[in-house]
Amino acid sequence: MVDYPRPIKELIEALSTLPGIGPKSAERLAFHVIKMPRKNILNLSNSLLDIKDSIFSCSICNNLTDQEPCNICRDDNRDQKIICVVQQAKDVVAMEKIGEYRGTYHVLQGAISPMDGVGPEELKITRLFERIKKQEVIELILATSPTVEGEATAMYLSKAIKSLNVNVTRLAYGLPMGGDLEYVDEMTLSKALEGRKEF
Amino acid sequence: MVDYPRPIKELIEALSTLPGIGPKSAERLAFHVIKMPRKNILNLSNSLLDIKDSIFSCSICNNLTDQEPCNICRDDNRDQKIICVVQQAKDVVAMEKIGEYRGTYHVLQGAISPMDGVGPEELKITRLFERIKKQEVIELILATSPTVEGEATAMYLSKAIKSLNVNVTRLAYGLPMGGDLEYVDEMTLSKALEGRKEF
Repeated sequence: MVDYPRPIKELIEALSTLPGIGPKSAERLAFHVIKMPRKNILNLSNSLLDIKDSIFSCSICNNLTDQEPCNICRDDNRDQKIICVVQQAKDVVAMEKIGEYRGTYHVLQGAISPMDGVGPEELKITRLFERIKKQEVIELILATSPTVEGEATAMYLSKAIKSLNVNVTRLAYGLPMGGDLEYVDEMTLSKALEGRKEF
Repeated sequence: MVDYPRPIKELIEALSTLPGIGPKSAERLAFHVIKMPRKNILNLSNSLLDIKDSIFSCSICNNLTDQEPCNICRDDNRDQKIICVVQQAKDVVAMEKIGEYRGTYHVLQGAISPMDGVGPEELKITRLFERIKKQEVIELILATSPTVEGEATAMYLSKAIKSLNVNVTRLAYGLPMGGDLEYVDEMTLSKALEGRKEF
């Protein structure tokens, strides 16, 4: 049996290691790359190396950044007395997309998950405590995901922070906007009912 | 609103230009790349450039190759008197996976498609005629896809080659193996009925 020539096979193998890209997609991508202008391939190739070389965690909030400290931590217009705690850097961008939040963030870089061997020590929590004291934080918004791990993390943090005299809040649970009620799962519906407000 | 740092944004943009990769997948891939070992990124980055630099079309059969002529054309054990005509290089690998075919190939690099402005002149057909004469071909197997374009191409070739005194055959139409009859489309079922054989 004759297989693809070596360079094609190597690219297919390298692409197959990426998440969500199976052998068939990798094949399709490799053939696309052959037809791409050389300039675009160089661009992609450089971006891949560039991201590894220039992205690191902000020393204050652990958000991914290409400068120290990150954009948000260095911004004097952001309220340093409010910290929104999220699990990962992607969540910061999700929060920023609302365009309403003017406080700062703290990225835990994970969530408590005993199943995966992740305890509070594995998360960037010590530095959060230091910030709470140093920045005289008045509100800590727990914005971890509404999953078992995210809830456990929120629970852990709220207990651990109790003694620090900070107002700890949690994002509201309820119906996601835009969907049909019939497709909302029971857990969410129960939370939405529990959290109902005067109309 | 604070967006991703420049290197992340650039990689997401570069990845989004690839087929089948939307903004969300590109984001996921970019974050995966940040966590990848530097060695693996270098490997992927090099493979991308390598494929562009070292892959070209075989001067005999137009198959994609990294050496001239390609593996199959240079193999003395392959029967030069039988040519299997396919649309693209991927189809050669598909045929080779059967492990039974011992002839050679001819890659048209496309199919006749008036809608897309692709006529017979746009395909590598002239060279096929030359090969048929030079290699004293006895059988030409039309293995273009069972699509409107593939059928039109097969039809065109069979007519054009009539005068050359070559046995022209076409891959059989019928039921694909492994599926349920109820899910087979009418066209295929009709072809399968038409081509039925003594059991």
